[in-house]
Amino acid sequence: MTFDECKRLDAQDPLASLRDQFFLPEGVIYLDGNSLGVLPKAAPARISEVVAKEWGEGLIRSWNSAGWFDLPQRLGDKVARLIGAAPGEVVCTDSTSVNLYKVLFAALSQAGDAGSRRRVVLSERSNFPTDLYIAESLCRERGFTLKLIEAGELPAALTDEVAVLMLTHVNYRTGAMHDMKSITAAAHAAGALAVWDLAHSAGAVPVALNESDADFAIGCGYKYLNGGPGAPAFVWVHTRHAGQFEQPLSGWWGHAAPFEFTPHYRPAPGVARYLCGTQPIVALASLECGLDTVLAAEAFSGGQGSMAVLRTKSLALTDAFIALVEARCAGRFTLVTPRDHAQRGSQVCLALSDGGSGAYAIVQALIARGVIGDFRAGDSQMPDILRFGFTPLYLGFEDVWHSVEHLVQVLDGEEWKRPEFNQKQAVT
Amino acid sequence: MTFDECKRLDAQDPLASLRDQFFLPEGVIYLDGNSLGVLPKAAPARISEVVAKEWGEGLIRSWNSAGWFDLPQRLGDKVARLIGAAPGEVVCTDSTSVNLYKVLFAALSQAGDAGSRRRVVLSERSNFPTDLYIAESLCRERGFTLKLIEAGELPAALTDEVAVLMLTHVNYRTGAMHDMKSITAAAHAAGALAVWDLAHSAGAVPVALNESDADFAIGCGYKYLNGGPGAPAFVWVHTRHAGQFEQPLSGWWGHAAPFEFTPHYRPAPGVARYLCGTQPIVALASLECGLDTVLAAEAFSGGQGSMAVLRTKSLALTDAFIALVEARCAGRFTLVTPRDHAQRGSQVCLALSDGGSGAYAIVQALIARGVIGDFRAGDSQMPDILRFGFTPLYLGFEDVWHSVEHLVQVLDGEEWKRPEFNQKQAVT
Repeated sequence: MTFDECKRLDAQDPLASLRDQFFLPEGVIYLDGNSLGVLPKAAPARISEVVAKEWGEGLIRSWNSAGWFDLPQRLGDKVARLIGAAPGEVVCTDSTSVNLYKVLFAALSQAGDAGSRRRVVLSERSNFPTDLYIAESLCRERGFTLKLIEAGELPAALTDEVAVLMLTHVNYRTGAMHDMKSITAAAHAAGALAVWDLAHSAGAVPVALNESDADFAIGCGYKYLNGGPGAPAFVWVHTRHAGQFEQPLSGWWGHAAPFEFTPHYRPAPGVARYLCGTQPIVALASLECGLDTVLAAEAFSGGQGSMAVLRTKSLALTDAFIALVEARCAGRFTLVTPRDHAQRGSQVCLALSDGGSGAYAIVQALIARGVIGDFRAGDSQMPDILRFGFTPLYLGFEDVWHSVEHLVQVLDGEEWKRPEFNQKQAVT
Repeated sequence: MTFDECKRLDAQDPLASLRDQFFLPEGVIYLDGNSLGVLPKAAPARISEVVAKEWGEGLIRSWNSAGWFDLPQRLGDKVARLIGAAPGEVVCTDSTSVNLYKVLFAALSQAGDAGSRRRVVLSERSNFPTDLYIAESLCRERGFTLKLIEAGELPAALTDEVAVLMLTHVNYRTGAMHDMKSITAAAHAAGALAVWDLAHSAGAVPVALNESDADFAIGCGYKYLNGGPGAPAFVWVHTRHAGQFEQPLSGWWGHAAPFEFTPHYRPAPGVARYLCGTQPIVALASLECGLDTVLAAEAFSGGQGSMAVLRTKSLALTDAFIALVEARCAGRFTLVTPRDHAQRGSQVCLALSDGGSGAYAIVQALIARGVIGDFRAGDSQMPDILRFGFTPLYLGFEDVWHSVEHLVQVLDGEEWKRPEFNQKQAVT
């Protein structure tokens, strides 16, 4: 693959115009949309309107006049179009961690009392740490055991002791993607429920929650959905469960009749019971701008939905990046992300082939050149990795070319060995 | 009290200039700052800066370069100055309801196992419903009983079965304020912990958490703290407890070493363990603008702190409102808020003396005239009320005069009987 081929691919890209929806800083190639999506051009004006008009002028009246009360559901319906869910099945609220606590609690409620044989929550050792922390806490609280396995041990680890299988659909480190449908079926066959974290899936890869017959799902608003830093997250619950279980964060917004101010809690029907306290309205408005950038791809999909066309481009971008790295940095890196399309998310992760500790410094040197990816530290079982997220909404093949060109220069000039690239940041 | 006296009081008001910090809509007298505070003039520009520069330009780098990671603590230190706490004791995060769940869970952790005699959470029947919902859920989960009493039954109800006394310092309906210090002492004498909800206190009345020897407190960012709709809430934990108990919402931001990405949870020392998932950064920035409006009163306090001077004006405003209502609407209303300064928050609540159902319509008629208070429905034990919040930062005595003048006109002309004022809104 040559630079000219990259230019040609961009020229032929039917989604190229979607990039115009975003504010992309000068001199930056942003390969970290899997950590924080970029700013939609529509967001500043919409946020200013909410601040000045809805808050400033409307004040408390805006709960009715600006539709604040409906925001979690209205935005949830937009998320639903991206994750294979139906209208009314999703709410946008709270953080991913808090939402995981809610759905995992609800899922464990069906496992019966402490005398039940099913007392295991099964997850992956390399799952996103915060998911494991939440599960660890809930397991201790509710008398379950959190059992961590390697992905390859599925489905064998689905014994009749497993109450809940909790997985992140696309691994945050490796970019490896599970087959949601077959794994959910295996969990169900073993008598377990399947809880899916879509943090690196929503807006990144096609997700078919209802078709996969999943039980619960949560996801993030500020990564591929471009909702802004710390944007509210989302919750989806299969309709067969939505009105069945209670979640313990029983705040006013999840009450069946919140404005009756009754002293006893009565959960709202359906997924609305997964709401809790008052949500940051400005952050929800910002999230809606982000959701609209992803939904804008629908117009190019011939009725297949945004994620179908975005997926095609995403795979082409990650294929191109892998091919260029392997051609131009031969032998320097090991590909950590699966080569098989069916198992690949929308990111590419590399480890140093020599097992050395340069990954952090290489990422810092790239950032200094405006190529923003990130570093994830390894441990005794996992290597340090360089992580590059490819968001097809705003990246093109020239970006891929230039990223690899910078990587080659960082390596060939030993630029990454400079002291300033080896100083740890507070937040990595 | 005459209109001229009101004008004179405004002219003499040493805090009058603080009003210039706010955007107050034309034609509105806003008596609902206890529900949603008004927009600080500094907020739109600051929010735009966070959106365009920190998110748009800085992107993921802003976690370090813009100090996002420190926001919960940095803002917490500002809240601390308003509630009698020390730096490092408060974090701003999540919603009030979610934070109550965390601190109540932690407080119940010290009550020992299910064999313990202390299995009661004691609260007021008229506490804010969402607080009762959260307590109800946690009690069911953890094997406790939620016992609801009337305020007058304290301290007698503090038996040796009570593990936790959970109260809202200023009642959301009546504006009645508890004596935090003596009630906390009574709880401790009975062997119980005291958890305080400061939703209607922070920024409204002086609070002395450490001096009162309270155990846990939570509060709201969008009422008297002017943080914007759904602004993040706050958590305070006494230093003797902060590192002792775990809260169950164990997300990455509360981890002792969040960027080591270890699979096991290790709570951060101190109050930082009450953080959970990623917070809405734009909403935190907006909250800081609100906090700064309250802290601006420090300059007029002669070293006594914002709340000392704001309290003096708040009491003068509510005194004036009560006096004018009683003089000009004689016999029409019963004062629900305590007349005793020591027991009064920063609001005045009225019930119709005739026991009729006109309260809702009167509030609607006032809103139509630009006098924005709110209505809270009663039940078999509590009357419907008209609720008026007085925020000394942006209200003056002329506002009090005009509010009562509008009330008189609404009543005398029977304006409130018009059909349009009797139609219920979705959100009340």
